[in-house]
Amino acid sequence: LIGGSIGMAVRQRALARRVLGVGRNRERLEAARELGAIDAWETELAAGVRGADGIVICTPVESIVGQVREIAAACPPTAWITDAGSIKGEICRALEVDGLAGRFVGSHPMAGSEKTGAQHGQADLFEDRVTIVTPTAGSPKPLVEQVESFWRELGSRVFRMSPEEHDEVVARTSHLPHLAASVVASATPAAWLPFTAGGWADTTRVAAGDVELWRQILVGNRGQVVQAIDEFTAVLAEVRRSLAGGDPGGLIEVLQAGKRNRDALGN
Amino acid sequence: LIGGSIGMAVRQRALARRVLGVGRNRERLEAARELGAIDAWETELAAGVRGADGIVICTPVESIVGQVREIAAACPPTAWITDAGSIKGEICRALEVDGLAGRFVGSHPMAGSEKTGAQHGQADLFEDRVTIVTPTAGSPKPLVEQVESFWRELGSRVFRMSPEEHDEVVARTSHLPHLAASVVASATPAAWLPFTAGGWADTTRVAAGDVELWRQILVGNRGQVVQAIDEFTAVLAEVRRSLAGGDPGGLIEVLQAGKRNRDALGN
Repeated sequence: LIGGSIGMAVRQRALARRVLGVGRNRERLEAARELGAIDAWETELAAGVRGADGIVICTPVESIVGQVREIAAACPPTAWITDAGSIKGEICRALEVDGLAGRFVGSHPMAGSEKTGAQHGQADLFEDRVTIVTPTAGSPKPLVEQVESFWRELGSRVFRMSPEEHDEVVARTSHLPHLAASVVASATPAAWLPFTAGGWADTTRVAAGDVELWRQILVGNRGQVVQAIDEFTAVLAEVRRSLAGGDPGGLIEVLQAGKRNRDALGN
Repeated sequence: LIGGSIGMAVRQRALARRVLGVGRNRERLEAARELGAIDAWETELAAGVRGADGIVICTPVESIVGQVREIAAACPPTAWITDAGSIKGEICRALEVDGLAGRFVGSHPMAGSEKTGAQHGQADLFEDRVTIVTPTAGSPKPLVEQVESFWRELGSRVFRMSPEEHDEVVARTSHLPHLAASVVASATPAAWLPFTAGGWADTTRVAAGDVELWRQILVGNRGQVVQAIDEFTAVLAEVRRSLAGGDPGGLIEVLQAGKRNRDALGN
C-alpha cells in the first residue's frame, strides 16, 4: 500500500525520471506496473538500487535494517535511503552502530489503512498527512533535508523528532489504539457480531490489519507499548472504580477529556 | 437524531397519517418540522400523546421510566408505547413493577452515531440495521407484535431478547467499545493529536458522543459494564505479559482473534 502509493505520487507529480519497484513476487510487481505505481521492476535488491538517486524501503519493520545494509553496499554513494516503517528507535540505533547514519535517515509517513497491496494505493495518500523524519546525532544535514523534501514533494507535512521521541509518541497515537481495537474485537463473542453497530465497527476497524506486520511493530516498540498499556489500564481502572462505587465523577472526567480530544481532531 | 430519523422514515413510508413530535425546545421542534421529520409538534407530553396510536420515546435513558408513566396515563389505552434507549433492564424492571408491562415494550434500534439532533436524521437510518425488542413475562403478545412490526416497517431486522440478555450483549458490543474509545482519546496528550492517523481517528470516533447521554447509559448498565471491563482488562494484561516477557504467542493470539471477528463483520 505505502510503496504503491509513493510510486503513484512520484509518477503523477513527475518527481523522478523513473520509479523502479523491487520485490519478490513477480505477479504483484507486474500488477503494480499495470496500475501505474511503477515504471519497471526488479526482484534483485542490488540490481534494483544500482542506479538510484533515492530509495524508500516499504517492507515490514523487522526487514528494514538488513535491507539498508544491503542497499548501502549496492547503490550509488550519493543516493539517499529512507524507510516508511512505523517504529524508529531499534532501526535507527542499529544502523548508527553499523556506521550507516550517513546513508540512511528514518521516516514514518502517518498514512495508510488496514488494507495492504498496491491495488489499494492512492497518489494522494500523503497529501496533508504528517510524515515524521527521525535524524540521529550522526545524520548529515543535507541527507536529512533531502529526505524531508522528498516527503514534502508528496504533499506531506514533515515533522522532525528523535527516533526515541517518535516511538514514545506513536505508542500512544497508533500502537495502543491498535491494541485496544484488537482486544475489543477479540473479546466480543462472534455470535454477538449481529448486535454491533457503528460504534463497534469504527472502534475495531484497525483490528483487521495484517497480524504479522502488527506483531513486528508492537514487539519492536514493546518498551513504550507496555508503558502505554499501563497508562491506559490505570485510566480504565479509575472508570471501573467510579462505576462500581456509584460515584460517576471519575467516569464523567474521562468521557469529557475523551470528547475534548476527539472533537479537537475533527472527522 | 433517533426521533428525527423515525419521523422521517414514518412519513416517507406513509406509515402514519400524522407524526407528532413532543419536546421542550420550540425552535428545535420547528426546525424538525421544517426538515420534514414531523408534521406538527407539542411541548406538553400529555397533549402530545392524547390521540396517538403508537408512541416512541427517544429521550436519554434516565427519563424513560417517568415518561412512560406519564404517557400511559394520558394516551389512549389501545396505543402501544416503546422507547429507543440503549439499556433495557432497569427500565423494563421498573415499569413491570409499576404494572405497565401491558402498555410498554422496550426497544433498542442499534443505529445512530456520535451526532445528535434531527438535522443529522436520515429516513434510512434503520434500514438493514438491527433492532432488539425486549418483552418481559408480563408483555401481552399483541403488544410485542405491534412494536416489532413497527421497527420492521422502518426496514429494521428485529431480534427478541430479555432485557437482561440485551444488557449483557450491548455491554460488550457497544458500551465497552465506547469506554475503550474514550480512554484512548482521553489518554492521548492533546499536543500529540497532529501525530495521529486513521487508526486513532477510527478507534476514538465514538468518544465524541454526548457525555451526559453516555454517563446515563454506562451508569444504568454498570453491573454488566464492570464485568465487560474486567474481561477486557484480563485480555489486555495477557497482551502486556506477552510483550514484556518476550514471548509473542499471547499477542499473536489476540491479534488473530481480533482480525477474525473484524473481518467477519466486513466494513
